Amino acid sequence: MVVTQPCATTKIDIRNPSNMSLEFSSWLSDQTTSEEIRLLRRVGGMEAKSTQFQAMEFAKTAAYGDVLVLDDTIQSAEVDEYLYHEALVQPAMMTHPNPQRVLIIGGGEGATPREVLKHPNVKSLVMVDLDRELVEFCQQKLPSWHQGAFSDPRLELLHTDGRAYLAQQEAQFDVIILDITDALEEGPAIALYTKQFYSLCQQRLSESGVMVVQGFSLSPLKWTEHATIRRTIHSVFPVVRSYSIFIPSFACTWGFIIATNNIDPANLSHGEIEQRIGDRNLADKLKAYDAVSHTGMFGLPKDLRLKLAQLGHILEDGKPLVFEEK
Amino acid sequence: MVVTQPCATTKIDIRNPSNMSLEFSSWLSDQTTSEEIRLLRRVGGMEAKSTQFQAMEFAKTAAYGDVLVLDDTIQSAEVDEYLYHEALVQPAMMTHPNPQRVLIIGGGEGATPREVLKHPNVKSLVMVDLDRELVEFCQQKLPSWHQGAFSDPRLELLHTDGRAYLAQQEAQFDVIILDITDALEEGPAIALYTKQFYSLCQQRLSESGVMVVQGFSLSPLKWTEHATIRRTIHSVFPVVRSYSIFIPSFACTWGFIIATNNIDPANLSHGEIEQRIGDRNLADKLKAYDAVSHTGMFGLPKDLRLKLAQLGHILEDGKPLVFEEK
Amino acid sequence: MVVTQPCATTKIDIRNPSNMSLEFSSWLSDQTTSEEIRLLRRVGGMEAKSTQFQAMEFAKTAAYGDVLVLDDTIQSAEVDEYLYHEALVQPAMMTHPNPQRVLIIGGGEGATPREVLKHPNVKSLVMVDLDRELVEFCQQKLPSWHQGAFSDPRLELLHTDGRAYLAQQEAQFDVIILDITDALEEGPAIALYTKQFYSLCQQRLSESGVMVVQGFSLSPLKWTEHATIRRTIHSVFPVVRSYSIFIPSFACTWGFIIATNNIDPANLSHGEIEQRIGDRNLADKLKAYDAVSHTGMFGLPKDLRLKLAQLGHILEDGKPLVFEEK
Amino acid sequence: MVVTQPCATTKIDIRNPSNMSLEFSSWLSDQTTSEEIRLLRRVGGMEAKSTQFQAMEFAKTAAYGDVLVLDDTIQSAEVDEYLYHEALVQPAMMTHPNPQRVLIIGGGEGATPREVLKHPNVKSLVMVDLDRELVEFCQQKLPSWHQGAFSDPRLELLHTDGRAYLAQQEAQFDVIILDITDALEEGPAIALYTKQFYSLCQQRLSESGVMVVQGFSLSPLKWTEHATIRRTIHSVFPVVRSYSIFIPSFACTWGFIIATNNIDPANLSHGEIEQRIGDRNLADKLKAYDAVSHTGMFGLPKDLRLKLAQLGHILEDGKPLVFEEK
Repeated sequence: MVVTQPCATTKIDIRNPSNMSLEFSSWLSDQTTSEEIRLLRRVGGMEAKSTQFQAMEFAKTAAYGDVLVLDDTIQSAEVDEYLYHEALVQPAMMTHPNPQRVLIIGGGEGATPREVLKHPNVKSLVMVDLDRELVEFCQQKLPSWHQGAFSDPRLELLHTDGRAYLAQQEAQFDVIILDITDALEEGPAIALYTKQFYSLCQQRLSESGVMVVQGFSLSPLKWTEHATIRRTIHSVFPVVRSYSIFIPSFACTWGFIIATNNIDPANLSHGEIEQRIGDRNLADKLKAYDAVSHTGMFGLPKDLRLKLAQLGHILEDGKPLVFEEK
Repeated sequence: MVVTQPCATTKIDIRNPSNMSLEFSSWLSDQTTSEEIRLLRRVGGMEAKSTQFQAMEFAKTAAYGDVLVLDDTIQSAEVDEYLYHEALVQPAMMTHPNPQRVLIIGGGEGATPREVLKHPNVKSLVMVDLDRELVEFCQQKLPSWHQGAFSDPRLELLHTDGRAYLAQQEAQFDVIILDITDALEEGPAIALYTKQFYSLCQQRLSESGVMVVQGFSLSPLKWTEHATIRRTIHSVFPVVRSYSIFIPSFACTWGFIIATNNIDPANLSHGEIEQRIGDRNLADKLKAYDAVSHTGMFGLPKDLRLKLAQLGHILEDGKPLVFEEK
Repeated sequence: MVVTQPCATTKIDIRNPSNMSLEFSSWLSDQTTSEEIRLLRRVGGMEAKSTQFQAMEFAKTAAYGDVLVLDDTIQSAEVDEYLYHEALVQPAMMTHPNPQRVLIIGGGEGATPREVLKHPNVKSLVMVDLDRELVEFCQQKLPSWHQGAFSDPRLELLHTDGRAYLAQQEAQFDVIILDITDALEEGPAIALYTKQFYSLCQQRLSESGVMVVQGFSLSPLKWTEHATIRRTIHSVFPVVRSYSIFIPSFACTWGFIIATNNIDPANLSHGEIEQRIGDRNLADKLKAYDAVSHTGMFGLPKDLRLKLAQLGHILEDGKPLVFEEK
Repeated sequence: MVVTQPCATTKIDIRNPSNMSLEFSSWLSDQTTSEEIRLLRRVGGMEAKSTQFQAMEFAKTAAYGDVLVLDDTIQSAEVDEYLYHEALVQPAMMTHPNPQRVLIIGGGEGATPREVLKHPNVKSLVMVDLDRELVEFCQQKLPSWHQGAFSDPRLELLHTDGRAYLAQQEAQFDVIILDITDALEEGPAIALYTKQFYSLCQQRLSESGVMVVQGFSLSPLKWTEHATIRRTIHSVFPVVRSYSIFIPSFACTWGFIIATNNIDPANLSHGEIEQRIGDRNLADKLKAYDAVSHTGMFGLPKDLRLKLAQLGHILEDGKPLVFEEK
């Protein structure tokens, strides 16, 4: 069946005419490599600048609304960031029976704390994000991301190095969320992916404590770095699980690694999860996450699970980062 | 960490020089719209022609190996077609306790019958694909897709209209797989998505019979057509379930709709599925599918499940096709 | 012949791994329409913002160095802006026997005044560019464009509307250069393309005065708007000539329209041009322009010249802008 | 000014739905490198296959009509091939006072012979194109290119190696046109760009004989290979000239090298050219070419002329092909 609809209006642009003046469009590239190009059509103007730590672009796209791009890859899109942020935060928050003290390293957009603060259990949320300039930009320009989280009295926001913070303070957390997004080739981020760092996290976790790490693009074709990070975490934590969710604006499934000393998040029953959602009065506050989607996220394809279970190299302080190729 | 590697060689191409001759690459577009462009780099030459029914292209891509493109969208890529075909076929074949007679409408690449024929229960597989020219191309050029399925004595291959075939023969099938890929705007495909057609399928199914339909791109942002097809199927079949899997070469999660008169595929236990895999000696023959991934595929995000459950328009013979917009 | 060369280094980017980590590239779109896409690979970060009048982007490209983009089309690229600016300025400056007083409307990047100020004859150069913010950005970030022109004591820089300026001051100019780049669909630019405005320019020109207007993309396939502007100018000036030059970073030939009351720029002899270049001591200061290239620029294809000579609609104040389609 | 126009119709494509179904478009890449991407929107299906010598694609584009692509770069587009073919053929044919015997090496599309055969002087046209399969494809599918040239009784078409042909036959030609399009990295084409081959051409030319070679993309930014070919030709022929023309479908200016033993094509007067056009009754048969455009094509920018005049490496049989980088 065919439906005719009026086109976007054609502007007579005097700079580049042809018999029928075609309007110029602008395009934003995402995750583009020498093998695959992905471009999203932009609408209107954009902002772009480099902070001390990363190059950022903020633009509105036709398909996904406003998007925040860091170092040439989309971090977050207005229309589906809830999928990423609920997936990052909710399984860990639900795995813990009563999460009162939570730490986020990264999270500068404001959506990660937003998800944590939905839980009435939370008494204290510390957020450590090194890039002050980016955080201030997000506070100002991305209100639908933070939805007031930055103003919540339970939140303490620090602009310092996350590992240094964790090392020098001794309090324990119930949940630690590592929402670090910058590339590994330089700077402090490298130190946030090693066995030594995960040991430090383990020391700072309470008894039923849960750690979750965003674990990059994960699919049967892309799994090497996720697997290396996962093995590194597993060399410290006895219980480690991978899960993933499809994020339309990323055009891929994003992986996460959740770790505890005892509870297995993949074995939470539907009843337990729905009980906690009810107790915490979250049914209306969670858009994508519930017991069924929790189970769905952990149900990875067989061949991917086998690849993730392979033995191999782990990441350690002072040693070069090598991601094993299989 | 940084790794230096030799580039693809630079050819001195006398047709388009610059001081450092850059090699020309060629790109294949997939699912490209006015909002989003996706291009895969090709390697080597390609073949392209139009059959009586569709425009086809066959090329090797750097990222995904050989790909078959029909009407400007990738149907299948060498490196991950197993994800699509196992997802299309295996849940339905496992839901039925003993699938002996199977019908495929479409499936011309040969991979759908390949998956069905792995089950020793199968005595008869009828495959009805209208496009003889495409099927012959696939038989010849896509050996890793069919892996000999076309030569299996249990297979009966017909080149005729699927609905007409089903109407005029009276035998019953245990599993009916609708793997139809062409667009709806013209021709016989329209008639394969209506209430009347699904009723015909129901009449041709045995008592524990299972029908599965490939249900297009499915995510919390893209669900309208899947929902309409699903509602249409549900107006005939009492038990209907949606499930999905991420296909890297498609850069999206693909949906499927499975329907029965009684058994609920989403409620098969892990034990039952593993039992059947064992009984049918399939553990080594299935790469992605097992009980855990089966459950994973049915675990859709909450908001998507709510959207799919909404009431609305269904598709019927003789009425214009309208996909409700929400 | 094949030459192997080392690739750009592969970074292990932890955000989007695959077995061989491919570095992300970023791309800038230029003059992209629904029929043709053009993208240039960017290097490093970029700046982007909207001034009161236009959306601007400033980035470094692999192929063309730094580029300034306004409203989704490249205005100027570091490596070949000299081709555009010499073509815009030099034919008019050479056509006039002794250009002492010059006016530029637009020209904010600083390169247009740079070209004018090379002529020792020039005693006074008035530049009127409405977008103060853009001009300040260019003064600061584009030193290779202005090369100190903004500091030349002969330059008077005004940030006001060009037509209003011309109307309210009565002094005459020897050369008027209209280097206006913004699209026509709104604001003051519309008023700078009409018969009434060109009449005003004619009144403000000295006896041997020369006016030149940048006349958009011009080729045998793209000529409609250039032709309309040219006809409009010709309804005022008795002598009007079109010329063009290929600008690699634009990937097209750009047109210009030069007008006088008497002298025919296309009929200047090689001897006259070389004489003036010598008298003004410009041989070492002009990179692309000389007598041979001057003649080359006026040598348009026959069919294009015929199209430009056709009668048709002209642009006038208060009437809708219509570009005749042939 | 804004004009609203109806869009291309939106098809309800059941394979990739979204709330508003967007039609899939397909794109053809041209001259795309790691620095610059160019894509033209295709309309309808396409044909693609590999002959013994090259990979070819034939498709209709929205902007340029039908295009023929060889080895990932557009050779010819329906709407503007006349610009290329008139530029390749007419200056050489006009430079010779009475061209009766003409040789084309290459030219398989049929447009090059079409241009030659317009001249009533021509008694014999030999065309040697190695790729029989491509020539037959063009004869059948590109009627607007050859316009019956293949059936002209003056044409003798041979499918053999051009250099071998020229070596073994002794007759002389008045004009030799080298319209070779394949890349240099393998096969017979290498032998058609050396000093030894150009010497052979010189021996086969009559006294006022003219040779013309298509000389690749030529601009102030791209000139290295053209310069090397030109120098090589100049090591044989005393008179050598470069000229160029902008081809919209190529998005660049294409260069040509014309060589004689005596006559200087760049110094033909307008009167001489117009005289010959008149004598040969060609005024109505030439769309772009006349005396003014002839002069225009030779008017290259100063810096480009200086680069082309530099001394340097030439190409010889048996030595590796090196294109000097400056």
